[in-house]
Amino acid sequence: MSKKFQRIGIIGRPELEDIETTLTNLYQFLQQRDLMISAETTTAQLIKNFSGARVDFQQLAKNQDLIIVVGGDGSMLRAANTVAQHGTPVIGINKGRLGFLTDISPDEIETRLAKVLEGEYWQAERFFLQICLDGKDCGIALNDIVLSPGKTPHMLEFEIYIDEEFVCSHHADGLIASTPTGSTAYSLSGGGPIVHPRVDAIVLLPMFPHTLSARPIVVAGNSEIRLELSANNRSGAQVSCDGGEIISMTANSHLAIKKYATALKLIHPMDYNYYQTLRSKLRWGQQL
Amino acid sequence: MSKKFQRIGIIGRPELEDIETTLTNLYQFLQQRDLMISAETTTAQLIKNFSGARVDFQQLAKNQDLIIVVGGDGSMLRAANTVAQHGTPVIGINKGRLGFLTDISPDEIETRLAKVLEGEYWQAERFFLQICLDGKDCGIALNDIVLSPGKTPHMLEFEIYIDEEFVCSHHADGLIASTPTGSTAYSLSGGGPIVHPRVDAIVLLPMFPHTLSARPIVVAGNSEIRLELSANNRSGAQVSCDGGEIISMTANSHLAIKKYATALKLIHPMDYNYYQTLRSKLRWGQQL
Amino acid sequence: MSKKFQRIGIIGRPELEDIETTLTNLYQFLQQRDLMISAETTTAQLIKNFSGARVDFQQLAKNQDLIIVVGGDGSMLRAANTVAQHGTPVIGINKGRLGFLTDISPDEIETRLAKVLEGEYWQAERFFLQICLDGKDCGIALNDIVLSPGKTPHMLEFEIYIDEEFVCSHHADGLIASTPTGSTAYSLSGGGPIVHPRVDAIVLLPMFPHTLSARPIVVAGNSEIRLELSANNRSGAQVSCDGGEIISMTANSHLAIKKYATALKLIHPMDYNYYQTLRSKLRWGQQL
Amino acid sequence: MSKKFQRIGIIGRPELEDIETTLTNLYQFLQQRDLMISAETTTAQLIKNFSGARVDFQQLAKNQDLIIVVGGDGSMLRAANTVAQHGTPVIGINKGRLGFLTDISPDEIETRLAKVLEGEYWQAERFFLQICLDGKDCGIALNDIVLSPGKTPHMLEFEIYIDEEFVCSHHADGLIASTPTGSTAYSLSGGGPIVHPRVDAIVLLPMFPHTLSARPIVVAGNSEIRLELSANNRSGAQVSCDGGEIISMTANSHLAIKKYATALKLIHPMDYNYYQTLRSKLRWGQQL
Repeated sequence: MSKKFQRIGIIGRPELEDIETTLTNLYQFLQQRDLMISAETTTAQLIKNFSGARVDFQQLAKNQDLIIVVGGDGSMLRAANTVAQHGTPVIGINKGRLGFLTDISPDEIETRLAKVLEGEYWQAERFFLQICLDGKDCGIALNDIVLSPGKTPHMLEFEIYIDEEFVCSHHADGLIASTPTGSTAYSLSGGGPIVHPRVDAIVLLPMFPHTLSARPIVVAGNSEIRLELSANNRSGAQVSCDGGEIISMTANSHLAIKKYATALKLIHPMDYNYYQTLRSKLRWGQQL
Repeated sequence: MSKKFQRIGIIGRPELEDIETTLTNLYQFLQQRDLMISAETTTAQLIKNFSGARVDFQQLAKNQDLIIVVGGDGSMLRAANTVAQHGTPVIGINKGRLGFLTDISPDEIETRLAKVLEGEYWQAERFFLQICLDGKDCGIALNDIVLSPGKTPHMLEFEIYIDEEFVCSHHADGLIASTPTGSTAYSLSGGGPIVHPRVDAIVLLPMFPHTLSARPIVVAGNSEIRLELSANNRSGAQVSCDGGEIISMTANSHLAIKKYATALKLIHPMDYNYYQTLRSKLRWGQQL
Repeated sequence: MSKKFQRIGIIGRPELEDIETTLTNLYQFLQQRDLMISAETTTAQLIKNFSGARVDFQQLAKNQDLIIVVGGDGSMLRAANTVAQHGTPVIGINKGRLGFLTDISPDEIETRLAKVLEGEYWQAERFFLQICLDGKDCGIALNDIVLSPGKTPHMLEFEIYIDEEFVCSHHADGLIASTPTGSTAYSLSGGGPIVHPRVDAIVLLPMFPHTLSARPIVVAGNSEIRLELSANNRSGAQVSCDGGEIISMTANSHLAIKKYATALKLIHPMDYNYYQTLRSKLRWGQQL
Repeated sequence: MSKKFQRIGIIGRPELEDIETTLTNLYQFLQQRDLMISAETTTAQLIKNFSGARVDFQQLAKNQDLIIVVGGDGSMLRAANTVAQHGTPVIGINKGRLGFLTDISPDEIETRLAKVLEGEYWQAERFFLQICLDGKDCGIALNDIVLSPGKTPHMLEFEIYIDEEFVCSHHADGLIASTPTGSTAYSLSGGGPIVHPRVDAIVLLPMFPHTLSARPIVVAGNSEIRLELSANNRSGAQVSCDGGEIISMTANSHLAIKKYATALKLIHPMDYNYYQTLRSKLRWGQQL
C-alpha cells in the first residue's frame, strides 16, 4: 500500500465533448472523500457547484499531492510539462482517442480511481528531454523533439554528435528524438521501435533520410545529443517539443538534447499493464 | 541504328559550378557536326562564342529533335515538364549529385554523347502523373506528387479512392504518389519499393501513417486516383509536383491523380543499364 | 452478362472441419440447377448422396467449365497449379483463415455463388511464376518462389540477373520472388509492398539481407530472372513453390524464374472488391 | 592509466588465411615485453618457435589477465562464451570480414595493441543472454537467441511473456532476441534498431510476422522473457545461440531468456569509437 494522496488538483481540457459531465462526476466522487480539492481556474468553471479552491495551473501544479488530468494524451503532455519541475504526481482520465498516458476511462472513476486514492497504485517515472538552442534552454518534451524544415517537406543537412563524438550526418526531412514514452507516438509512425518505459534510452530516427543505409538508433538515456544544422540550409529549420511550440533554428546553429533533471511521476492503477495498452491502443501484434 | 537527331536544343542550369565550361565544351563538340543548334536564352549567354539560335524554353522545347539538359535531376525534372507536351526527346548531362535521369557525365561528351548523336541510342518512355484539384488541372510530375500539411509535420485526414472504389482512409503526415521514375527518389526515403521503369504502375505511400498496419501499395499505371481531404483538416493541406510548385488544398476538396497523356522520351546511350545506376548512385544492394 | 458455366467440377480439402456439410450444401445447391456436376474422387466421398461423375483431379481440371474449390488459400494454390495448364476457370469457397483467393463464404452459396452461375461474374487473370533449375522445369507458383538455406537460417550468397543483366549480389537468408497475387502473402511479412493484381510485375525481396542498403524491387512481369548460387554456399540451398514442394539446389547452380505461359482464370462475383479484401483480411490501413 | 595485463592468453581460428603469420607476429611482439604468454593448444601449433605454455581453452580462459582472440566476430563470439564465466577480459585482432567485436587489425599490433598493453585502454561490459528450455540451462549468447522452425521457413505459433505478463502472440517464422551487441548483427538484417552497447536492453524481433501490426520492441535488460511454443506446432522448432549450437524445442515447451550472471569484459583501445565502427563496418548513415 502506497502513500495516500490528500491534496488533489484537477485540470481538464475545455474543448472536449462532455467534459463538464466527466469533470462534475469526478468532483462529486472526490467530494465524498476526505480530500482537499482544487481546480485550475478554467476547469473549475466547468464543474457544477464547485466549491474548492480555484488556482491557475502553475500554482496548482506546485501545491498538490496528485494532479488529475481529464483529457487525452495531448492534455497530459501539456500538463506534464508544467507539473514536471515540481515533481507532483499525475494521473489521467481518458477523454481522447488513444490514451497511452491516461489510464482511467470516465466510467472507471468509482472503481479504478477509487483504488488509487486508497493507496493501491504504483508510481512510474517517465523522463523528459530538454532542448537547448545555441546555449539557451527552450523547452522540454515527454514524447519527442522533432527537427523539421518547417514548410513543404524538403531536405535538411545536419550532423549528430553524442557526448562530443561525431555520430553521422544526414540529408533528411528531419529527425525525431524520442523518449521511451514517445516511442509509441510519432517515432513509431516513422518506423521506430517500441521502447518499454523502463528502458533508459533515447531513440534517434531520421525522417525520410536521403540514403538507403539509415536505421534508427537507440542510445543511452544520459547521452548528450547535439544536432548541428549545416550552413547549407538556406531557409533554416524548426524544432518542436511534443508536437507543440515551434522554435526557429537558423543554419549554423546547434541544438542540444538531453534528459531533463526531473522526471514525470505517473500514477498507474495496480492493474495497469503496458503490453495490454500496446495491444489494445495500437493493435500491436494483432493476429490475422 | 535509330534515327539521327538534326535540330539540337540546349538548356543548362545557370547556378551550377563550372556550368559555362561544360556548356561551352558541349557547344564546341556539337559545332563540329552538321547540326542545327539552338539554346535557351539564359543558357546561350553562358556559352562562349555562341552563334546558334537563342529562344525561350517554351519555343525550344517545341521545335527540336533532341533537347540536351545540362544539370542535375532537378534540372531534368523541370525541363521534362515543358518538353513533355511536345514529345521532344531529351538527354541529360549530369552536373548534379545523383544523376538518375542524366546519364552522361561532362567528360563523356566526346564518347557517349557522340555515339548517341550517331544514332546509337535507345529511347525510353517515362510517364508523368497529372493532378487535377477540384476539377482543375494543376500540374504534372515525372517523379512524384506529395500531399503534405505545409507547416510542421502534423496529421492530415484523407481518403483514397481508385477508379471510384474506396481504398482506405489515413491519418498521416501526407501521401506520396510516385511513378516508377520517382520510386528511387522521395518515395524510397519513405520506405517505398524500387519500381523498374518498365513497370506500368504507381506507388502510393502514406507518410508517417498513424497506424501500424499501413504498407505501400503499387497500383496499375492507368488507375484514376482520388484523394479526399476530410473536413476535419482545419488548416488544409498542400500539394507539390516533383518537389516544386506548391498548390493549396482546403478541407473538403479532392485531388485527382492520373497518368498524363504524353510521356517523356528519355534518350539513353546503348550501354545504359538501370541496375548499374541503382548500384552506383544509390549503393543499392552494396555488400558489407 | 458473361458466359454461363455448364460443366461444374468440385474439389474440397478433406481435412477441414465441417467440410462434408459445406460440400453437401454446395452439391444440393448445384443439383437444383441444370448443370453437369463432377467431383474429384476423394471429395465425392465426402458429399452425401453424390450421384455425379467421380474423376481424379487431373481429369477434372481438364474437362470442366468451372472448378469450385472448397478450402482455404492453400487449397486454391494447389488446385490452381493443376488447373492452370488447362485454362479452366476456378472460384473458391472459403473454409480457411484468410481467404484472399476464395471469395465466397459457405453461407453465401445461395446468394453470391448463385449469381456467378447466372453469368454475373468477372474473370481475372492471375499469372504464375515458373522455375527452371539448371535448365530443367521444376514447378510453378501462383504466390511465390522462395530460395532459402533449408536448415537454421544461415546466410546464402547469390547473384541476381534480369534479362541477362547483372542486378546485384546478396548475402542473405534467401530471396522471395512474388507475383502480385503473392504480394499479400509471405512477401508482405518480409516488408514487401502490396501489388495490385492488375499490375504486371514481379517483386524481388531479399530475406534478412546482410547489408543496410537492400530494398525490395518491383520488376516487369515479363522479366527473365536468374539466381546464381555462388560456389561458397557449401551446404547448398533449397527452393519452394507456394510454400510447398522443396527442390534442392547445389552451389554453382542457377535458377531461372519467369512468367508461366498460361494464367489462372479466377472468377470473382461482380461485387468483389480487392481493396475491401485488403482491409478486411489484412486490416490494412486500419485506423487507430 | 588502467591496470596492466601480465598473463596473456592467445587463441586463434586455424581456418583463416594467413593465420600463422598474424599469430607469429603477435607472439614475437608479445615476447619483446615482460609478459607471461600462453596459447590454446591448437593455436600454439600455428605459432613459429612458440615457447610459452600450451593449455586447452577452458584452462586458458580461467587463468589469464587478458585473452587475445585472433579471428573474426564469430571467433570472438565462441571465445566469449567460454571466457564469460571466468570474467577474463578479451580483446580481438580482426582477421574477418566485419570485425564489430575485434577492434585491432593485424597491422595495428605494434601501435594500438602496444598501447593497450601499456595500460591505455578502457574496459566495456557486454552482457550475454542465457536460455533455459523447460527449466534446463541450454546456453548463452552474446549476440542473439534465434527461435526458428528449422526447415523451410514455415510459420510458428508462440506467445511471449515478460516478467510473467502476457506480451503478445505471434504467427511468424521465428523470433530474434538480441542484446545491444547483437543489434548490429542478425537483428539488424530483420529490420531491428541499432542499440548502443551502453543501453541496458533486449530487442525482440519477430521474423516474417504474419500480421501488418508487428514491430520490434526494446525491453529492459533485466526482463525475464518466456516463449511458449503453442501445441499447434506439429513439427516443433529449434533455438540457436549466436547462430551456433541448435537446440530442439517441441510443441508445448517453453524457453526462458534472461541476462546471464556475468558479462563479457571487452577491452577497447582508448581511441575506439562505436559510431565510427557503425559508419565504417555497416556504412550506416552513409551519404549518397
